[in-house]
Amino acid sequence: MTALNKIKDIQKQNNSILCVGLDSDLSKIPQHFGKDINTLLDFNKKIIDSTKDLVCAYKINFAFYEQYGVEGFRILKDTFDYIPKNIFTIADAKRGDIGNTSAAYAKSVFGYFNADSITVNPYMGHDSVAPFLEFNDKMVFLLAMTSNKGSNDFQKIVADGKPFYQTVIEKSKQWSTKEQLGFVVGATQTEELREIRKIIPGHCLLIPGIGSQGGSIPDTISANSGGPAIINVSRDIIYASQDKDFTDAVRKRAEYYRDSFNNAG
Amino acid sequence: MTALNKIKDIQKQNNSILCVGLDSDLSKIPQHFGKDINTLLDFNKKIIDSTKDLVCAYKINFAFYEQYGVEGFRILKDTFDYIPKNIFTIADAKRGDIGNTSAAYAKSVFGYFNADSITVNPYMGHDSVAPFLEFNDKMVFLLAMTSNKGSNDFQKIVADGKPFYQTVIEKSKQWSTKEQLGFVVGATQTEELREIRKIIPGHCLLIPGIGSQGGSIPDTISANSGGPAIINVSRDIIYASQDKDFTDAVRKRAEYYRDSFNNAG
Repeated sequence: MTALNKIKDIQKQNNSILCVGLDSDLSKIPQHFGKDINTLLDFNKKIIDSTKDLVCAYKINFAFYEQYGVEGFRILKDTFDYIPKNIFTIADAKRGDIGNTSAAYAKSVFGYFNADSITVNPYMGHDSVAPFLEFNDKMVFLLAMTSNKGSNDFQKIVADGKPFYQTVIEKSKQWSTKEQLGFVVGATQTEELREIRKIIPGHCLLIPGIGSQGGSIPDTISANSGGPAIINVSRDIIYASQDKDFTDAVRKRAEYYRDSFNNAG
Repeated sequence: MTALNKIKDIQKQNNSILCVGLDSDLSKIPQHFGKDINTLLDFNKKIIDSTKDLVCAYKINFAFYEQYGVEGFRILKDTFDYIPKNIFTIADAKRGDIGNTSAAYAKSVFGYFNADSITVNPYMGHDSVAPFLEFNDKMVFLLAMTSNKGSNDFQKIVADGKPFYQTVIEKSKQWSTKEQLGFVVGATQTEELREIRKIIPGHCLLIPGIGSQGGSIPDTISANSGGPAIINVSRDIIYASQDKDFTDAVRKRAEYYRDSFNNAG
C-alpha cells in the first residue's frame, strides 16, 4: 500500500484530518507523572489511547526525545511501536545530508523506527532527498513554507521572479510522485498556501501552526482548497489539562479540532 | 573560553587543521571487528587513539549511529565522552526547526552530548538558529555551500542579483559573532569558497569534501585565503586499511592530510 493510500484510508475510517503532535516535554506534562524520563512513555500511551479514534496521524518530534539522550531515544522507539498500525506516523526529524548520510538517516527512520513518513529539509538539493525516496511505501514531507517567523528570512526571497519556496516546490515535485512526496506548509501562511495549491493541487500537505502557533482554521481550510492534507496540533491538545484525569480534556480538544476542520470546509 | 579560541589553541598545539570524520559504518570497518554494533565504539576508540595528536577536531556524523537506534545513540554518547577534552568536537547533525524544537536539539547536542559545535541548516531562518546561539561557549556551523551535487539545485540560484548561498551568509552573519558562528563550505566548491572569503574573512569554515568526495587540497587552501578553517576527511582516513593493524595506515593517512594542508599554503 502506498503511504498516500494509508493516509486516505485512515482519514476516511476516523473521519479526521487531525494529526496529534507528540512534542512531549517533562516540564509540561501533568505533574503527577513526576520527573522520571520514563513517564514520558506513559504520558504518550495515554494520549494515544484517548485520541486514536479521532486522528489520522501522530507526528513525533525527535528533538523532544533526543534531549534526554539514550533514554529518550528508547522512549521514541517504544512510542512508535505503541501506535496502532492503521494510523499514519510522521517522524518530524527535519533531516537531510549528502547521499550516503541521508541513506543512514532513512535506515534509522524507516527501518529502525518504522515510521510511515519523515520531514526533510530541501536546502542540500536532490541527492540529499533521493535516499528517502528509495523507500517506495513511505512518504517524504519536504519543508516548503514553514510556520515560524524565520520563514521570512529565506523562503520568501524572490529568485527568478518568484518566491524561493515556490522554486523549491516546482523543482522537487519532479523528483517523485505524489504517492511519495508531500510538503510542509504552515497554517500561519494562508496566502502562500493558496498559491501552493495552484502548483500542487494533489500532493499531500502536512500543515502545522494551528493551536499555540496561532493559525486560523477557516482560513487554512479555505486556502487548502480541498487538497489532501494532514493538519497537526501539538501543545494545545496534549497539554490541555494538568489534572489527573487529563485525558478527558485531551479528548475534548482533539474532538474540537477534528470537528472544526471537518466543518470549516 | 570561546569555541573559536578552543579551535585556535588545538590547531596550534597539534599544528593541524585536519578534522577526522567518524562516519563509522559496520559494513566498512575492518572485518575482524565482527558484526556486533558495539564494536563500532572499539573502532572509534582506536581511530581516536591513533590520530589524537594529528588533528584539531573530530566530526561525528549522527546519521551513522542513529541507523542502529538506541544502541547507536549509546555509542554516539560514549564516543563523545572518549574524545580528549582539548580536541574540538563537531556534532554533524544538520538540525534546525522552529524555536522550541531547536532549543530541545540544542539541549541534546550541547547538553547531553557536550559537543563543542553543531552543523545547522539555515532554511527555516533566524529563530530556528537562535536557540543554538544561546550557548555562548559553543559554535554553530551553518550550511552555506555544501559539497554535494545537489548544492546546485537551490544554493546557487540567483536571488537579488547574487547566489542564494551568499544571501544566507550575508544575512546570518548578523545573527552572532565569529566567536560563535561558522559556516560549512565544501572543498568541491573552490570558486564559491574564494567568494565567501571576501564576505567573511575571519569566520571559521568547516570544509568537508576532501578525500572520497574529490576536492583538491591546493585549490581549497588557496581559495580559503588563510582564514580560520577546519578541513574534514572521513572515509579516506578511517577506512585506510582492512588489516588487523589498520591503525598504522590510518595514522599515515592522517599525517599525509595534516602535512598536505600545512604545506599547500
